[in-house]
Amino acid sequence: MRQEKDLIGIHEVPDDVYYGIQTLRATENFPITGYHPHRELIRAMGMVKGAAAEANMHIGSLSPKIGKVIVEASREIVEGLLHDQFVVDVIQGGAGTSMNMNANEVIANRAIELLGGEKGEYFKVHPNTHVNMAQSTNDVFPTAIRIACLNVANDLLEALDLLRQSFEDKAQEFDGVIKMGRTHLQDAVPIRLGQEFEAYALMLGRDLKRIKQAILALEVMNMGATAVGTGLNADPEYIKKVTQRLREWTLLPMRIADNLVDGTQNTDAFMEVSGALRTLAVNLSKIANDLRLMASGPRTGFNEISLPSMQPGSSIMPGKVNPVMAEVVNQVAFQVQGNDFTIALACGAGQLELNVMEPVVVFNLLQSLDILRNVARVFRDRCVVGITANVERCRVMVENSVGIVTAINPHVGYDVASNVAKEAIICGRPVRDICLEKCVLTKEELDIILNPYEMTNPGISGAALLKR
Amino acid sequence: MRQEKDLIGIHEVPDDVYYGIQTLRATENFPITGYHPHRELIRAMGMVKGAAAEANMHIGSLSPKIGKVIVEASREIVEGLLHDQFVVDVIQGGAGTSMNMNANEVIANRAIELLGGEKGEYFKVHPNTHVNMAQSTNDVFPTAIRIACLNVANDLLEALDLLRQSFEDKAQEFDGVIKMGRTHLQDAVPIRLGQEFEAYALMLGRDLKRIKQAILALEVMNMGATAVGTGLNADPEYIKKVTQRLREWTLLPMRIADNLVDGTQNTDAFMEVSGALRTLAVNLSKIANDLRLMASGPRTGFNEISLPSMQPGSSIMPGKVNPVMAEVVNQVAFQVQGNDFTIALACGAGQLELNVMEPVVVFNLLQSLDILRNVARVFRDRCVVGITANVERCRVMVENSVGIVTAINPHVGYDVASNVAKEAIICGRPVRDICLEKCVLTKEELDIILNPYEMTNPGISGAALLKR
Amino acid sequence: MRQEKDLIGIHEVPDDVYYGIQTLRATENFPITGYHPHRELIRAMGMVKGAAAEANMHIGSLSPKIGKVIVEASREIVEGLLHDQFVVDVIQGGAGTSMNMNANEVIANRAIELLGGEKGEYFKVHPNTHVNMAQSTNDVFPTAIRIACLNVANDLLEALDLLRQSFEDKAQEFDGVIKMGRTHLQDAVPIRLGQEFEAYALMLGRDLKRIKQAILALEVMNMGATAVGTGLNADPEYIKKVTQRLREWTLLPMRIADNLVDGTQNTDAFMEVSGALRTLAVNLSKIANDLRLMASGPRTGFNEISLPSMQPGSSIMPGKVNPVMAEVVNQVAFQVQGNDFTIALACGAGQLELNVMEPVVVFNLLQSLDILRNVARVFRDRCVVGITANVERCRVMVENSVGIVTAINPHVGYDVASNVAKEAIICGRPVRDICLEKCVLTKEELDIILNPYEMTNPGISGAALLKR
Amino acid sequence: MRQEKDLIGIHEVPDDVYYGIQTLRATENFPITGYHPHRELIRAMGMVKGAAAEANMHIGSLSPKIGKVIVEASREIVEGLLHDQFVVDVIQGGAGTSMNMNANEVIANRAIELLGGEKGEYFKVHPNTHVNMAQSTNDVFPTAIRIACLNVANDLLEALDLLRQSFEDKAQEFDGVIKMGRTHLQDAVPIRLGQEFEAYALMLGRDLKRIKQAILALEVMNMGATAVGTGLNADPEYIKKVTQRLREWTLLPMRIADNLVDGTQNTDAFMEVSGALRTLAVNLSKIANDLRLMASGPRTGFNEISLPSMQPGSSIMPGKVNPVMAEVVNQVAFQVQGNDFTIALACGAGQLELNVMEPVVVFNLLQSLDILRNVARVFRDRCVVGITANVERCRVMVENSVGIVTAINPHVGYDVASNVAKEAIICGRPVRDICLEKCVLTKEELDIILNPYEMTNPGISGAALLKR
Repeated sequence: MRQEKDLIGIHEVPDDVYYGIQTLRATENFPITGYHPHRELIRAMGMVKGAAAEANMHIGSLSPKIGKVIVEASREIVEGLLHDQFVVDVIQGGAGTSMNMNANEVIANRAIELLGGEKGEYFKVHPNTHVNMAQSTNDVFPTAIRIACLNVANDLLEALDLLRQSFEDKAQEFDGVIKMGRTHLQDAVPIRLGQEFEAYALMLGRDLKRIKQAILALEVMNMGATAVGTGLNADPEYIKKVTQRLREWTLLPMRIADNLVDGTQNTDAFMEVSGALRTLAVNLSKIANDLRLMASGPRTGFNEISLPSMQPGSSIMPGKVNPVMAEVVNQVAFQVQGNDFTIALACGAGQLELNVMEPVVVFNLLQSLDILRNVARVFRDRCVVGITANVERCRVMVENSVGIVTAINPHVGYDVASNVAKEAIICGRPVRDICLEKCVLTKEELDIILNPYEMTNPGISGAALLKR
Repeated sequence: MRQEKDLIGIHEVPDDVYYGIQTLRATENFPITGYHPHRELIRAMGMVKGAAAEANMHIGSLSPKIGKVIVEASREIVEGLLHDQFVVDVIQGGAGTSMNMNANEVIANRAIELLGGEKGEYFKVHPNTHVNMAQSTNDVFPTAIRIACLNVANDLLEALDLLRQSFEDKAQEFDGVIKMGRTHLQDAVPIRLGQEFEAYALMLGRDLKRIKQAILALEVMNMGATAVGTGLNADPEYIKKVTQRLREWTLLPMRIADNLVDGTQNTDAFMEVSGALRTLAVNLSKIANDLRLMASGPRTGFNEISLPSMQPGSSIMPGKVNPVMAEVVNQVAFQVQGNDFTIALACGAGQLELNVMEPVVVFNLLQSLDILRNVARVFRDRCVVGITANVERCRVMVENSVGIVTAINPHVGYDVASNVAKEAIICGRPVRDICLEKCVLTKEELDIILNPYEMTNPGISGAALLKR
Repeated sequence: MRQEKDLIGIHEVPDDVYYGIQTLRATENFPITGYHPHRELIRAMGMVKGAAAEANMHIGSLSPKIGKVIVEASREIVEGLLHDQFVVDVIQGGAGTSMNMNANEVIANRAIELLGGEKGEYFKVHPNTHVNMAQSTNDVFPTAIRIACLNVANDLLEALDLLRQSFEDKAQEFDGVIKMGRTHLQDAVPIRLGQEFEAYALMLGRDLKRIKQAILALEVMNMGATAVGTGLNADPEYIKKVTQRLREWTLLPMRIADNLVDGTQNTDAFMEVSGALRTLAVNLSKIANDLRLMASGPRTGFNEISLPSMQPGSSIMPGKVNPVMAEVVNQVAFQVQGNDFTIALACGAGQLELNVMEPVVVFNLLQSLDILRNVARVFRDRCVVGITANVERCRVMVENSVGIVTAINPHVGYDVASNVAKEAIICGRPVRDICLEKCVLTKEELDIILNPYEMTNPGISGAALLKR
Repeated sequence: MRQEKDLIGIHEVPDDVYYGIQTLRATENFPITGYHPHRELIRAMGMVKGAAAEANMHIGSLSPKIGKVIVEASREIVEGLLHDQFVVDVIQGGAGTSMNMNANEVIANRAIELLGGEKGEYFKVHPNTHVNMAQSTNDVFPTAIRIACLNVANDLLEALDLLRQSFEDKAQEFDGVIKMGRTHLQDAVPIRLGQEFEAYALMLGRDLKRIKQAILALEVMNMGATAVGTGLNADPEYIKKVTQRLREWTLLPMRIADNLVDGTQNTDAFMEVSGALRTLAVNLSKIANDLRLMASGPRTGFNEISLPSMQPGSSIMPGKVNPVMAEVVNQVAFQVQGNDFTIALACGAGQLELNVMEPVVVFNLLQSLDILRNVARVFRDRCVVGITANVERCRVMVENSVGIVTAINPHVGYDVASNVAKEAIICGRPVRDICLEKCVLTKEELDIILNPYEMTNPGISGAALLKR
């Protein structure tokens, strides 16, 4: 055990840990979820600390001797080392101060080691004076959040685009599959299965666009804002340099907010991103619902498509295979919507110069990004690409449907068509037969009008007949 | 025009209106939704004002001459008169002060008239000094909210119980209808349609119980709390009397909070009630979803039940009838859930001695109660009571299903049963035939095991066979 | 009474009403909220019907005689006439069919009148055959929703920009007002009041941008999609023409979806818009919270600013003036967030070719747009423009604060600064005095470092000293 | 590696793991959150499996040889062994089938070991045939959820009652501390700090009652329901016995649902519990907000109370101590509200005989229970018990306030009082002085009326004067 001291008093710290007294206090204060910080957030803290040290060296505030080891320690964190030393709970009071101090302490102690010292010899490298130089939790933490979210978001975009592409591919594959369209879950008029999958692909395409647009807001950071955005203690030259260096550390087009007070107190960028994810979640849920409906059965449901069997469906009903991949999509969608709610509540709780609720925001935002990316991948690989159409079943249902009466509407008027439909329903007979029997239309006319392929493209089915 | 004056200055008021300057300012300040206060809230304000005047007369603070006309004016409001004089927007700043002043001014002016005076002669009956005597918006308004909500809630409970009863009746009616049960929207094992409707009835029964339990919290009011719950300016004798009188005016078992500070600053009762309504909404939505699924088709869906036709379903597809009554249930459920969110946000915004967001709480809570009551009525009358079962269709689907293989599971083991199921699915043949062909079970055994009636009651189907 | 007939049967309709049997049935089926359709939605229905009739005449499907009176009747509706004939509840089953039929019936009957006929003589102008020609509720209703929302959204943008400008103006006015910045509601470091207002203006500027971006999605409509987006019964030439005409009727840049199946079944555009409004709502709420905090007191709160007095604040506490305009902003924000929840739930309930929950979506979306526009106006006019700064009070608090110790941090190191702060807190004495007493810094150094103006701009306060 | 086989095909399973092929498939299908099942859920699965084996032995379906080792293996899981073998993601498709199969496989393999066999020799003890005998995921999983939630809920209740008690203790301690009450964040009338803390204690008392009431619904389980609640394959004697044994394994008053179909398809119990937690969360958040407000400052805020210093508050501002424990309460409250939303969405997604979204429900419900329990403990220990009142500061603010003018209201009328208040505000002078100067009241009268102690108890301050 080594002894460390802070504003509150003295506390023993285990010899082997790189974090220090403030991290330790935080673990005692916040035993909430048991979850440790997200890997990408830890890495982003490393990038920020490294870039800041470089900027501080550049303007001469930090000696090269100390600065160099801070940069080296930061680099290690970016590379994935020492992540087990980040032990503060994801839900924490203090607006991320504990997470920042965790990084400061780990980097300081690792830097001290690199200088040949012993952990705790903070006169060599001080967590606050050196590692946190010219920084505040209030600029460092939001900046790291942004970097972490951008990195996971870019993964999500990639996975999502592959998912979109797989729907696009299926749309091609199913382009010739005629099936009944349904509105209100009631038989409507024919549609092609490929048209439905094309609609899914287009919707996901819009989601991609929306998310790309939304995350642009994350590229705006407030490094140099320090405590309240006025930039107290942050040299303008430092701000310029840290921005430039951070672009190199992150390979992201980070830029400084036009106004650092605004950049420090406002969290609307997170709501914007979460809102875009929420819309994606609802859209994915709609697709999953449709797939589950179309795959319902096999004997007592729609049975228009078959989803690939990924695992036995029941512990008691042999042979049952359930749409588990679609179901997990629904659940991820619910989780993302709940997370979005938490994020909105937390973003709404900003007061004056700061929103102290950022830790719960980033926890939920990174989780949403993570699980959407993960589910996009497995949904594509283990469900969408393997969907098959039950072509014959689809065709038979179209032929037996009443909804095709809509096509005769322009030829005979709404009232006559309505009566045909009514009789078809009551007697349980095909529309075609009733039309013939009642001499409403001739066989030749019906062949033209009720051609299902013609019915799935714009225009009046059998329009030529009207012009005769 | 008459001239009135308040703390802010002088304002002209039209001669013919009963409200005064403060109401007028409120209409200018809050042109938000365009909705006027709920009829039951206006009536409840009348009850509170009337009871308070009686209590004030009783303790001698208010002269009988003035008190009597205040009571009379209040009575008129309770009876539905002068409601067009309540013109403040439902969403208003000031924690209900404007609504309270609206009531104070209308009652004062009507009381003045009853004394033979002219509107605006407040020296005769003063809105604050007399009508609001010993009261504060902070006790009057929450009390009126509670009374109004209780009255609408009691209507809801009545409508809901009738709806529950109609499901109970249908459960009896459909007790003999065998159909396939589905889990994951996949064929599972047989169930009786009556069992499903019984489950709906039981769920609604729990909702009734939950709402009854929740609204008990509304019976606790804070009359006499005045501004912050300390009861400043409220004579203890007055508090006792106003409670007693209010029970008579409302015919509700209203009682005073044990602690008026608590009773004034906390709004958890509203969240509790809204939470119970939210659960009801989600439950109703589940029922509506099931009905829409079971009624899907008629030709290309489940078609197990038929919902009564209430209106033509389509402006373009003749003969189409949609499950419109179920759809309106879903939408009411969504609205109630959104309202619940608003209520939770508003209830979470209380600060220190008061929650100033109560106006938006009561607007949403009364709307939720209203629309749930209304939809419960039409859902019952125009949908549930008229549902019919498509008995033959249900029976055929059971016989063709694979899921009944579950019943043979205890007789042959999971692995054998699983293979039978697999073959049934692949070859599209009935489970029974495969069992016979493979000599898995004899015809006699299958007749016993696969008896669908036996399969819908607890126990091993064909248990007797196992004991042979 | 006249008798009308539909698929369900015969129903009497009052002689004087322009709507017909289907509207009447809808009023009986859906007595839910009691609210009638939004004025802008009614107008938009008129535009759609008028444009469709023109397009149908253009392609020769509709005779000029009938088409002309349909256009004239539609024009009247756009101009605000006959709005009292739109009587269907805002929450309705049937995906807007009742609203569409209400428009069809009113227009048909008015058109019949214009032809010199009697209401109900549908052989002259038929609601379905003529007024609804080549249309479906599923293309007409979503298109009208989009037009209505765009019109209200444009009003909102205008009001919001004025509000933003007023914060910008105040930022200028308060640029020289030094006050304490607070993080965690704890004294932090000085900031200028103008910087805070500038941050509000910038945040609202982003909201403007977000909303403008989001509503672009509303310009994409699905006219010609008919029932399921396949365009059955809709002549391609009609689609082209109706789009062109609708641009003229609406003066909006409406365009046809690239894919009408997608355009019919998906409602993500509404979620996108609502999400942007939700973010605005949360931002406005944050501003309102800050203003209420800064105006708290006057004697026992922050009292840094004064909000204009709009109405007496209390029915019992004389002289009290409350921040009612800020409070109504908060409540509108809560309402919009609840509405957004309802919208997300409804948008997530789409199934296959249609989302039948659109009526509740449009009710909530239009309400959100309305109340945000309304509150933006009164918040600006009755609150923001009249805010005054309590300059002296602000200045005194800065001088007495401990937070200014941050400025000496770079000069003496974190540990020394920390001790000074601790002593200042414990003894309740100014930081300056302690620094002098402990010889931490000289008076000259302190004058430079603790210059509050210098402390509110980026850089180290007293940086020159460090270079000495 | 050993080879295992299921309905889908053959898969290699590492030799050393106790789970089998179905668990393995689930880990491949659902790499979503990375979180493993909750410890209490794993334990509850052990209890259910053990009780079921005992019941199956009791009715003679399971041989004592096999049954005994199943019970022993189950017991080990209850005791915390083998928890690392529960590797399925918390968010999973299949309605918990994978979690159930994970338990079945681990228990089977451990039981096989206990019989001296090798893992994978399922002919000795089969996961489905023996461990899952007479069970279905659809009864086992919901039952285990209920047990797990009850266990964590009981911990929460204990922690919450201690928290409530600590507010009660503080209410006693602060009973004599006079301070200004505030409504609308504006000075209102005096109140005692103890009254405020008493109100917190009472509110939490109601939360305790609400949660206790809500969790009663969790005691109702559906063991024996099997797939759809009809009890297919479940011997009535087994149902009776498993219930009795489960009470012994759990020490909870579990009982069988009156109707197993209802008990299987409906999840309103989870919504009910989550709703109660949501209300608690909002209440805790309100308390945390109040504490943060009252502790704001120290120099530029309310500074009425001091919260204990738990950690340095800033990485840049020396001496700053932030209300971190209150902030973590707020964040937990936001998380619980978001979780509640997810739960409501998932509970609303039930279809027909089952709600397949239960995995995401239980993940969120257990997390809410966990974090509320955890935060209740640290909030009490590290914040509430150490709160101190700044008595002198509170007293001075009362004396300087304008709000005390309310007390003179009954003595001089609203209009006169209003003018005094106005002058006090404008001139910045004490109310008392103005009253004296204007001869509104005498010094003696004022001493009586403005006695702050008298003002915090019900009644008219100086009531005796009125009777003179």
